[in-house]
Amino acid sequence: MATRFELSLPDWASESLAATPALLDDQARMRWVIELARTNFERDTGGPFAAAVFEEETGRVVSIGVNRVVPMTCSSAHAEVMALSLGQQALGGHDLGGPGQPGHQIVVNWAPCAMCCGAICWSGVRSVVIAGSGPEMEALTGFDEGPIHPSWPDELRRRGIAVRDGLLRAESLEAFRQFATSGRPVYNARKG
Amino acid sequence: MATRFELSLPDWASESLAATPALLDDQARMRWVIELARTNFERDTGGPFAAAVFEEETGRVVSIGVNRVVPMTCSSAHAEVMALSLGQQALGGHDLGGPGQPGHQIVVNWAPCAMCCGAICWSGVRSVVIAGSGPEMEALTGFDEGPIHPSWPDELRRRGIAVRDGLLRAESLEAFRQFATSGRPVYNARKG
Repeated sequence: MATRFELSLPDWASESLAATPALLDDQARMRWVIELARTNFERDTGGPFAAAVFEEETGRVVSIGVNRVVPMTCSSAHAEVMALSLGQQALGGHDLGGPGQPGHQIVVNWAPCAMCCGAICWSGVRSVVIAGSGPEMEALTGFDEGPIHPSWPDELRRRGIAVRDGLLRAESLEAFRQFATSGRPVYNARKG
Repeated sequence: MATRFELSLPDWASESLAATPALLDDQARMRWVIELARTNFERDTGGPFAAAVFEEETGRVVSIGVNRVVPMTCSSAHAEVMALSLGQQALGGHDLGGPGQPGHQIVVNWAPCAMCCGAICWSGVRSVVIAGSGPEMEALTGFDEGPIHPSWPDELRRRGIAVRDGLLRAESLEAFRQFATSGRPVYNARKG
């Protein structure tokens, strides 16, 4: 019987994390995250999703995550959960917005699924930047976003988490289009 | 920088898992889960939440989870995420409803939060049994359930996941009442 489990980044992602300096503007942050998502499926280390946690002001990279569901046999190993959990390990606390912490931001290459929307709420990040939202990603790839709250950006805002939508939307959709035409698997259990 | 993280059960929970036989009826399953939740805060190994995954027909215990947010410094280490992830490790696949699998059920001592509702959707379980839902748990303890979809049971049902609500509701609330009067911390980041 299992009493513990470990989740990890693929080696290429750990190397990218170690090699990446502080990124001052949101566009540079998102461009890197989209590249992580693309590399993740091209190297067959997970689905086409990536996220990174930054110190909002300085752009220091705190942590990254890529989707690891199939390689780690763990349906919760989405990019956001990976990035937030690794950020909390790096900083040694369960609350990225705890006393004495600088403001933390998570950057993701699409709107969060239902699970990750909740995970963001509990993490302590103070802002979320997404490349896009709406039906295009699901239509292109076949992934299901799940039962996300219909007014989720408002729900996050009233919990003190800013939401910015639409940064490098076309570039992000282009990576999903590449994923869709690559014939790689969509792992959502029965689309839900 | 963190590139991997591990989540584990406390020793007393691993021992309870090893010692527990198949549980044929839902009430026996829930009674055990409520006891796991109570023991978890009494021993200061996490918050007052527990979950277990069963083979629905046989009652075989596949995995358990207890809330591990503070001890593991991981805001996603909720009871359901722990139980589902450990079940997937035990069975060696990311989909508890994959080909050749028996039907799996998750039993939880209260309605899932927004994150765990999504996690249940992605896990492959075919049914969810909860002790209760509604405002009482939040009112008693101060925990926030987060931005869960207003019609989440319907959303689960249309993804092929049955929901049974209200099993041993009073017993579950009694454990939350004990937690509330014990003075232990509520760890939700700024209540959201």
